[in-house]
Amino acid sequence: MSTPTIQVTLVQLDNYGPWTVTPEPRRETDLQSLQARLFADVSRQVGTGGGYVFHSRFDNMIAVTNGLDDEDHTAIQRTVRNQYPVTVSLSVAASDTPAAALELASERLQRVGSAQDSNREEALVGDPLDDEARTAEDVTVAHFDVDDFTSRYTDRVDAFDAHMSVTTAYATLMRYLYRECDALSFFVGGDNIVSICPSAEPTNYQGAIQHVTAETGIELKVGIGRGRTAHEAGMSAKHALEECRTNGTRIERDLATAHGD
Amino acid sequence: MSTPTIQVTLVQLDNYGPWTVTPEPRRETDLQSLQARLFADVSRQVGTGGGYVFHSRFDNMIAVTNGLDDEDHTAIQRTVRNQYPVTVSLSVAASDTPAAALELASERLQRVGSAQDSNREEALVGDPLDDEARTAEDVTVAHFDVDDFTSRYTDRVDAFDAHMSVTTAYATLMRYLYRECDALSFFVGGDNIVSICPSAEPTNYQGAIQHVTAETGIELKVGIGRGRTAHEAGMSAKHALEECRTNGTRIERDLATAHGD
Amino acid sequence: MSTPTIQVTLVQLDNYGPWTVTPEPRRETDLQSLQARLFADVSRQVGTGGGYVFHSRFDNMIAVTNGLDDEDHTAIQRTVRNQYPVTVSLSVAASDTPAAALELASERLQRVGSAQDSNREEALVGDPLDDEARTAEDVTVAHFDVDDFTSRYTDRVDAFDAHMSVTTAYATLMRYLYRECDALSFFVGGDNIVSICPSAEPTNYQGAIQHVTAETGIELKVGIGRGRTAHEAGMSAKHALEECRTNGTRIERDLATAHGD
Amino acid sequence: MSTPTIQVTLVQLDNYGPWTVTPEPRRETDLQSLQARLFADVSRQVGTGGGYVFHSRFDNMIAVTNGLDDEDHTAIQRTVRNQYPVTVSLSVAASDTPAAALELASERLQRVGSAQDSNREEALVGDPLDDEARTAEDVTVAHFDVDDFTSRYTDRVDAFDAHMSVTTAYATLMRYLYRECDALSFFVGGDNIVSICPSAEPTNYQGAIQHVTAETGIELKVGIGRGRTAHEAGMSAKHALEECRTNGTRIERDLATAHGD
Repeated sequence: MSTPTIQVTLVQLDNYGPWTVTPEPRRETDLQSLQARLFADVSRQVGTGGGYVFHSRFDNMIAVTNGLDDEDHTAIQRTVRNQYPVTVSLSVAASDTPAAALELASERLQRVGSAQDSNREEALVGDPLDDEARTAEDVTVAHFDVDDFTSRYTDRVDAFDAHMSVTTAYATLMRYLYRECDALSFFVGGDNIVSICPSAEPTNYQGAIQHVTAETGIELKVGIGRGRTAHEAGMSAKHALEECRTNGTRIERDLATAHGD
Repeated sequence: MSTPTIQVTLVQLDNYGPWTVTPEPRRETDLQSLQARLFADVSRQVGTGGGYVFHSRFDNMIAVTNGLDDEDHTAIQRTVRNQYPVTVSLSVAASDTPAAALELASERLQRVGSAQDSNREEALVGDPLDDEARTAEDVTVAHFDVDDFTSRYTDRVDAFDAHMSVTTAYATLMRYLYRECDALSFFVGGDNIVSICPSAEPTNYQGAIQHVTAETGIELKVGIGRGRTAHEAGMSAKHALEECRTNGTRIERDLATAHGD
Repeated sequence: MSTPTIQVTLVQLDNYGPWTVTPEPRRETDLQSLQARLFADVSRQVGTGGGYVFHSRFDNMIAVTNGLDDEDHTAIQRTVRNQYPVTVSLSVAASDTPAAALELASERLQRVGSAQDSNREEALVGDPLDDEARTAEDVTVAHFDVDDFTSRYTDRVDAFDAHMSVTTAYATLMRYLYRECDALSFFVGGDNIVSICPSAEPTNYQGAIQHVTAETGIELKVGIGRGRTAHEAGMSAKHALEECRTNGTRIERDLATAHGD
Repeated sequence: MSTPTIQVTLVQLDNYGPWTVTPEPRRETDLQSLQARLFADVSRQVGTGGGYVFHSRFDNMIAVTNGLDDEDHTAIQRTVRNQYPVTVSLSVAASDTPAAALELASERLQRVGSAQDSNREEALVGDPLDDEARTAEDVTVAHFDVDDFTSRYTDRVDAFDAHMSVTTAYATLMRYLYRECDALSFFVGGDNIVSICPSAEPTNYQGAIQHVTAETGIELKVGIGRGRTAHEAGMSAKHALEECRTNGTRIERDLATAHGD
């Protein structure tokens, strides 16, 4: 049996920091708008190929790109170049865990120049997976949310309290899943956290949920899905999370079926 | 002497959670794209009036809106309604600290219905400040970033390590400044954190930076600005941060002058 | 009594033609997307100030900007610069007819350099109207549409036939109103044409409609509004056009009242 | 030898006219922005699959979709539904001329309900071409522009004169090519017109150019390309047009090679 393999792409804006303050610091709301729109566009484009992208630090986005080939990657660079005042470099790598893949992608990009090297523009390094090497179990997504967040938080505490609760729960879960099982976790809005998990070995979801509750008092539930692409895995995870809601359970898996969109 | 007053607006998507899973869970990349674009648009619109908006949880955004009146607020609602498949409710409040203002805005919105009440649509509650009550010292912005982040992190550690470092530094700073001085802090991309601070009493920036270093090992610097609007204060803070870079200092204030854009 | 005065702004992309083919011709769908988004953004921004902008040739947009001052104009340039790979030059002029104002704006811009001069970037020439010189009758908008277009065309003939009918009706009306009364007319989607008319002297709307019918067989109706800004005049015109629909009439005026949005 | 076949898709906003005036007429700049952004998004998405889309009347867009299958079409509907306050119906048809294909697509859509039938939502009718039926000569694109437009018009006459010249040249060319050879022509910004021509029989480009000059005094040149998709054909046409520029010729064909992006 072949090992499941996760493919990630590091999307790095070229020389962005200096651009934001040259010749003078640029208006913050313009930068916020630029970053959000660029992310929205990359998200749409990666999503068309079945991938996921997370905004991470906005100037460094992290994507799960099983199913996207070289041409898809150059298309992302072309679109950004043709629509924005900035360009992006991309580094692709695959490995048996998300963390290992991203580590490799990061090294590859660092090797061709600094993020603030004005001579490094639109680098594209690394290799997408061959199609025949891909399997229907390559990507595992765990979709977490907070139990009854609206009634317990949004409608009850003030908006910054709610913000701090989600941020703290996310930071705690992020570190735990990275340390314990090489997973990459991202806050995706509302009370939702999406983790890209290694498909090979079982992730200790029970332990993760308990750890977050112990550290922060916040109670998470999680739906887990698997698929050939991030989209397939993520959609299964969403359906599993709906099962949690229906059944009043904390952990549900939806590993068998493929879901549409 | 009149007390400086901060005006905040809570921007809450109406009944958004249920919408994302009705009739079936919607594609994650579409949701990411929708949320980011909506934030980008609100940012542009709030920014035109001199305000700042932070994405916070994306379905609940937090804005500093000194200078935006009722008409500006209804224009935001109209724009969202005319461009998006969702609507927003807004709650405005002013007080002497950012935390107090947001607490008041949160209560006002909670009073008119749940975030997931399908009958609450486009609520607009609270009152903007009268123009004559406003002063040139109403808003204080502290703009933090991490010393030499690119050379120490982006170009050296892997992208998730860098992500975790920034997230952890942010979470630590956010809690400290909220607890110690009622400030609201937000991650704005890259290695940048923007704090809306109470103008009335001095914020312990030295203590905040030391606390973050002690807890996380990460070294921040900060530029502080003040103004009639978030934009004015934020632009001064950016210039002060440039001063830190030039002078090799950790804390700079730029409280006297007004800057263009 | 003071003469009504129309203020127009010519928005010209700097050196855009060469950019679209350098170093190689750029992908057409990217150019279409770029042009449309840039127009959408300028439209939102001009619209916030009460103005109208028409895409015209997309690389040369024509705006009615009564109510927008210097600061509003530089904000448009800043936003484009911070969000797009291209920049815009602006030329503002006011006169007693739309055609005269645009002629003046065109001359002013031509005087500072060619549209394809790589040294002319972000020119801003001309002067907005002083606020005290403005009146509630400065802008007259005539909003035309085709009688029963959906049932007679969209649902009956093929989509290119419908496209040709609207294009031909528009081209005919555009030339007539320009020649006869110095009005500037623009196709705004669907079966809608918006004309910016001189407020001073009565426009021969009856003649225009008859001319289009005689030349093309297409029957138009029109609502006419007046206001301090394009938005005010345009909203009145829309309400007048609704009156046509209700009353089965061809021409309605709504010159008295101001409408909200 | 198999006949070249063009596949077109009619993209029609559902019940859009009534929406724009319900409950009150919506702000014109919001409508302009909505229409332009929706077109930009559809353009990006159709473009990813190698297709072209033209805004036509904005509420009815016309696409050349050789290479886009059922799944690509439902993805367009899904994206619009998840990002906009409106939905789209799609009708796909293929034939040996662009005009015949669009006529068929129009009939199919009319058969399932009116554009203003509030019960017709997200209709998807017709069938994309089987992949094995497609050839490398299915799509012919002719890309026209005006000789020395910038120096003769943009930099010399006023902006509405230039607008009228292009509009009139376009309207004249559009009717001629439709009547003479079943081609569909669209204005795409600047001084550019793109015609989708039947691949089977030679189009009389010489005659078209002469006709436009005779009727309007405007001198066009044209690059012609052919390909498996609109993008391939269009990119070849752009390169051919560059050849015209280099060689000082009026008509160039680039029918042999495939170009990248």
